[in-house]
Amino acid sequence: MSRVEGNARVDRQLSFLLEADKLKKVERRSILMDGSRNENSAEHSWHVALAALALAQHAGEPVDVNRVIRMLLVHDIVEIDAGDTFAYDTTGRLDQHAREEEAARRLFGLLPEDQAEELMALWVEFERRESAESRYANAIDRLLPVFHNYAAKGGAWLAHGISRSQVLERVGCIEQGAPSLWGAVRDLIDEAVAKGYLHP
Amino acid sequence: MSRVEGNARVDRQLSFLLEADKLKKVERRSILMDGSRNENSAEHSWHVALAALALAQHAGEPVDVNRVIRMLLVHDIVEIDAGDTFAYDTTGRLDQHAREEEAARRLFGLLPEDQAEELMALWVEFERRESAESRYANAIDRLLPVFHNYAAKGGAWLAHGISRSQVLERVGCIEQGAPSLWGAVRDLIDEAVAKGYLHP
Repeated sequence: MSRVEGNARVDRQLSFLLEADKLKKVERRSILMDGSRNENSAEHSWHVALAALALAQHAGEPVDVNRVIRMLLVHDIVEIDAGDTFAYDTTGRLDQHAREEEAARRLFGLLPEDQAEELMALWVEFERRESAESRYANAIDRLLPVFHNYAAKGGAWLAHGISRSQVLERVGCIEQGAPSLWGAVRDLIDEAVAKGYLHP
Repeated sequence: MSRVEGNARVDRQLSFLLEADKLKKVERRSILMDGSRNENSAEHSWHVALAALALAQHAGEPVDVNRVIRMLLVHDIVEIDAGDTFAYDTTGRLDQHAREEEAARRLFGLLPEDQAEELMALWVEFERRESAESRYANAIDRLLPVFHNYAAKGGAWLAHGISRSQVLERVGCIEQGAPSLWGAVRDLIDEAVAKGYLHP
């Protein structure tokens, strides 16, 4: 795209957006609700941003929903370089942070410096789970896979021999981030065990 | 999910979000930038919301970027029922609006009434192109396919015998919605013609 030039800022913004297209090729372990194929991280990012909007009343603390949505739009971009680390992959999770931090630096670094810093800060905020927005964003991010695995009659849970206690540990942050959704999630997990979708 | 009950509001919000999963199965004509497969409307919705964030400085008028992002998160949900109508399908476009309006009523109607109205209003605003936010959102929505088709060496343009003047008519709204990106888009279209990716 040699002729898209003369404006270094536009060039960098477009480079970032073209590179971001690769997130559509990053496959997650979760399966679409109709069971037809694995979900990719780009469509997941859309779904989770939409969910943050639709479920905003359930945030455990007052939050700026717009910042939550921005956070969720960028939270998985690092996977373009670092890949999707399965939530229950204890080995892969050991160096996950280092791999993702390097990825964040390269990918957000494609943007003009001020924008790179802005998106980097959103990503770091999401990862640290120290702000109200981040706690709510993380809760929503962990909520959707429960519904995916339930709808896919076990999906990634059964495929990888995941147990109820592992799921509860993984999604326990929903109790704080979106407390009024916690009962529904816990009930769904119990129902999944009862139906044989999840090991007790 | 019989046990997710006792709170009709949560039930409706979750029903909407589970139904929204189907947008991942709606195939667009545009092809991923690596040429590997068609794009789906859910991952497109993520990409275009991210683009609205990254390109905000190019909006032709002052806009509330957060409302633009919300608009783009919901702008294609109607395709779950109405399907994706190809931009250059003149027959399909005749009844497109009626089909999409019915779809919007059903899909947003899954939500609690106040939220259904809110998302419906965002969708109508996007469609009408009467507000500054809508003009910018539509410009960004039409910008990305140009890059997809260029990156895919003609992609949907060649497959459907689309000409330069058809593309210019389709994306002309970028000149008003995001004027400082218009030069780059026009140059890219000319370059596509020069390379044989688009009929003159």
